[in-house]
Parts: sequence; structure tokens; C-alpha cells
Amino acid sequence: MARAWHLKSRPEGTPTADNFELKEIALPPLGEGMIRVRNHWLSVDPYMRGRMNDVKSYVPPFQLGEPMEGGAVGEVVESKADGFAPGDLVLHMGGWRDEAVVPARAATRLPDLGAEPQRFLGVLGTTGATAYFGLLDAATAKEGDIVFVSAAAGAVGSVAVQIAKAKGMTVIGSAGGEAKCDYVRSLGADAVIDYRAAPILKSLTAAAPEGIDVYFDNVGGSHLDAALALARNNARFAICGMIESYNAREPSSLRFLMRIIAARVRLKGFLVFDYQPRFDEFYRDMGAWLKSGAVKAEETVVEGLKRTPEAFLGLFEGANLGKMLVKL
Amino acid sequence: MARAWHLKSRPEGTPTADNFELKEIALPPLGEGMIRVRNHWLSVDPYMRGRMNDVKSYVPPFQLGEPMEGGAVGEVVESKADGFAPGDLVLHMGGWRDEAVVPARAATRLPDLGAEPQRFLGVLGTTGATAYFGLLDAATAKEGDIVFVSAAAGAVGSVAVQIAKAKGMTVIGSAGGEAKCDYVRSLGADAVIDYRAAPILKSLTAAAPEGIDVYFDNVGGSHLDAALALARNNARFAICGMIESYNAREPSSLRFLMRIIAARVRLKGFLVFDYQPRFDEFYRDMGAWLKSGAVKAEETVVEGLKRTPEAFLGLFEGANLGKMLVKL
Repeated sequence: MARAWHLKSRPEGTPTADNFELKEIALPPLGEGMIRVRNHWLSVDPYMRGRMNDVKSYVPPFQLGEPMEGGAVGEVVESKADGFAPGDLVLHMGGWRDEAVVPARAATRLPDLGAEPQRFLGVLGTTGATAYFGLLDAATAKEGDIVFVSAAAGAVGSVAVQIAKAKGMTVIGSAGGEAKCDYVRSLGADAVIDYRAAPILKSLTAAAPEGIDVYFDNVGGSHLDAALALARNNARFAICGMIESYNAREPSSLRFLMRIIAARVRLKGFLVFDYQPRFDEFYRDMGAWLKSGAVKAEETVVEGLKRTPEAFLGLFEGANLGKMLVKL
Repeated sequence: MARAWHLKSRPEGTPTADNFELKEIALPPLGEGMIRVRNHWLSVDPYMRGRMNDVKSYVPPFQLGEPMEGGAVGEVVESKADGFAPGDLVLHMGGWRDEAVVPARAATRLPDLGAEPQRFLGVLGTTGATAYFGLLDAATAKEGDIVFVSAAAGAVGSVAVQIAKAKGMTVIGSAGGEAKCDYVRSLGADAVIDYRAAPILKSLTAAAPEGIDVYFDNVGGSHLDAALALARNNARFAICGMIESYNAREPSSLRFLMRIIAARVRLKGFLVFDYQPRFDEFYRDMGAWLKSGAVKAEETVVEGLKRTPEAFLGLFEGANLGKMLVKL
């Protein structure tokens, strides 16, 4: 038997602990090409909020009464698949539970980059790759650019800040509260905005008197609007997330949308999954940055399967510095 | 003496005839490098609404009590500039008046494409170039794409529809009212939406059951929101204008903005002025399409300098089919 978190009810607005239920499930017998994995680390991510709605998106919605899923790193304990043996550490999508049976083709043996296994849920995982491809491909950010990163103390934002600095950009980061702002400063950001202390438009105008060339958007809403207001000619925005809107039932209200024309702004939404074929580039650069210390792997760790919903809900309260993880 | 329209007051919201005043002005003496032009055709364009506000944009605002300006085609009547002689037909920015003294370097002799002179304010001018570069460069539209064009009976939109058809795309156009919809249909659009007859989201969902690959936005607001709702993966939007917002004092409200991520949408604002170095391509293609009949030059002509404000105000009431012009 395994224990797995199930979706008990769909949230209206911000999710609560009541939306989740931990139940025992029988694992299916191990068919040909399958592996059984004991999870060591679970990932909780903002995008999972979208899967809690009954809405078709780039990933199907979680089903009511069914186990949830998500990124996880674990150890193979039984294998009926070529190339996988007990003891192998793998990255797979059978998260939100302590043990999973998954097809081997949907699992990845952790590449040998000399890094801790949980890094592959963070800076060396889709989180880091999101920052990497979002900044360098979707926004085509380059040396000398003035870059604004929102939610800069978050999992993706904190990596984006560090990549931008490693590549010779000027970086402005926003975060909520003194402690997080200190953290963003410690990552090397040239200016830090506490969005709780003053309206973001006012703060960004002060922090970027000459405007911005690139915006890495994790927040949407008022942050996106301020970035539009400050966009320099030919600014490029990578639209990665809109955490301000995930729980909102109001439409996005943008006063400065029309600046997209006068400033010839490019907005590009992107999903990290599309970059899977280019992960070699990412592993090469990020592996090197981790070794040199140019990128640090900040993690907020919550211990115990039982606390998985708590870790997830914390994402919407700003409880994390860097990547939020559950350690089993 | 020349007669020129002056900005008498700045509009709040929709402009009215009271914002304009026709006054006689003394033309400056003809300095070295200058030409005197008698205007035959004046252009009125939606972007001029922006110049009536006291706001810095990509073109400076009109000044209170000063003559307005805009695109015009006229005949040189006196020249102190090399390469310009009386009788030459030129395109220049000394519009909103019957006669102008302009620097020759800011005027263009009409290229010999065998076309009527007023075409250079329409399909062969910035209007046509806006459709051409917006569709083919900003939106990178290509054969086989499903393209949605808003304000498809307007100056830019009607050309965008025809270029899209000439290039083998499927085209959905929106316009207001039966007559305009008939016109858009006559341009070859595969489906036409009367945005006054039903909510645009509902109509677009019906007209594009498989979604859209490209959106050519002249309208913003609810049209843009519907396009986001219907965007297929990797859709590209060329943001050309937002006439719905020019007179509005409310922020843009978008319910479907978040789809930019799931569908990896790219929004690109653009200004035709940036494409000046590539006008040869445009003249080559558009000249050929005009000759072959693939693109027709629809014009709404208002006669007489006195009626220039009327022609301009008509743009916001949907009074024009194709390019709105004033004939002197």
C-alpha cells in the first residue's frame, strides 16, 4: 500500500487544506516497462493550482477523488524496465505520494552533474529550466539589458535573477517583505522592490528611472501593468506565471496595455516542457554555474508527506525562499 | 496665406468638432532645401487621437492653438530644393491644411507604380504598409494559418484581410453592421463577424471552432480578450491599434490574459515607421497585388478642407469603408 494525496474538492479562489485528503491506495502490479519508486523528495509548484480547476489547459485537471501528481525524485525499488535497477535515483511525475509505480519511459535517471538529488526538482529541474529558457529564449535577454524579475525570491525568480547577473545584466527584483528583499539582494540584484511597502508602479519607476528592457513575469496583474508602463522601446517580456491571478475571479485590469504599441513590446508566454529537447544546454550551463557558485540553490524544505498541502498552500502566502520542497 | 486646422482644445474621451478650429496662417518664406506644396489629399488616421492628448508617445502631441499635421499628398508649387520641381507629386506630413512649406528631406516623391496619387495615403502608404508588415513580420503569418482581423472593414484591416487571402490563409474578419460585413465578405474573408450583433467571444468561438493562429489587432479590449480565449498553441498576435481604448478612461479588462502562457502566445506591438528601410519589399508586393486585383483600394472620400474634422471624427463612429481621405 502507498499513501497518496487526493483531490477532495475543487477550490473556489485560494485553496485550503480541506481540498486535500491523504488516503491509502493499492499500487498496481508491476507490468513490463514499469518501475516502482520510493519517493525521497516531492515538488509543489504554483502551476498545480491550475490543475485543481476543472478546466482544460496544457496539463489535464486533477480529477476529484483521484490521487494528485507532480514532480518527484525517488529511488527505484523494483524494476521491470531495461536500464533501470533498484537503487537508481530517478525524476518522475508520480509525486504527492510516498511510493509510485510509473512507466520507465516517463522517468529520467538523474544526470551525473555532482549535485544533490533534490536539485533536480529545483535549479536543475523544470524550475531552473523555466528561469533559463524564459530569460534567455522567450525574452531573449542579453548582456547590458535592464531586467525586471517579479517574485524574485521565489523558486523560478531567484534563479532568473542569478542567471541575469551571471550574464552581465542589470537586475531589479521584486519580493514581499523585508526578509525576502534581503534574500534577493544577497543574490546580487542591483535593486530590490518590496511590493508590499508601496504601489509597484511607484517603486518600479524609482528603481528603473530609464525603464526596462526585459520583464520576467511570475506575477501578472499590477506587476505586469507597471512593467508595461516602464517598458523601453523593443522591450521583451517572458510571461511565465501570473500568481496574482491564479486564485482571482476578477479579470486582469491593465492601464498601460496600450504601451505595447508605442514601445513595440513583445510579450511571449512559454512553457518549459517545450524546451525538453534543449535540456543539454541547460544542464551544461546550470551545472557550471552551480559549481562556480554563480547560482546558489536556495530551498525551503517542509518535512513529511503529511505536510505536502501545507507546503503547497505556502506558495500562495509567500512562505518560501527559493524552491519549495517536501522531504519524505 | 494658407488655411490650417488648429487644435483648439484637448478632448476628454471622444473628440468633437469643438476641439478643432480652421484658421488662416502665413506660410514661412521658402528657405534653402524647402518646398511649398499645394495639398490634393489629406489623411485622417486613428493614431492622431493619441496626439490630441498631452502625453509623450512615439510622436509628440499636437500643441494647443497650433496647426495640426498628418499625412498628405500634394503638388510642389515652388522649390528651393535639389531634385524637386513644380508639378512633382509628393507625400509629406504637412496635412490638415491646404498648403504647406516643408523641408524636402521630409517629403517623398511618389514612386512610379502606375497608381493613383491618393493610394500613397492608403494601400500604398503607411496604411497598407501597416497591414503588410504587421501581418507578415510582427505576426509572422504564413500560408495555412487561421487569421482573425478586427476592424476588418477599416483602412488597415481591409488590406490585412486581402494580403492574408493573397498568401493562402483562412481569414475571419470582424466589423460593425451589415454593410461593413458585406464589404469584408467581398474582400474574400472566409467568415465575417458583426461585433454589434452578438458578444465577440461568442461569435469568434462559432467562427473559429478550431481556434486562431494569428490575430491582427486594431481594436483591443473585448476583441483582444476573445482572441486570447481562442488562441491556438504558438499563436502570434500583431498589436497594431486599440481603437476601443483610445477614448476610454477605463483600464483594459482581460479575462483570458492567462491563456498567453498555456497557449504560448506571442503578442507584438509594432509601429510602421520602424519598417521604413524595408518599404521596397512592400512597394514590390503591394504594387503587384494592386495590378493583379488581389488587393483592391477601397477609399471613403470626404470632400473639402472644411470637413477634415468630420472625416476624422467619423473614424470613431465607423463611418469609413477602407481608407478615410479628404479631397481638396
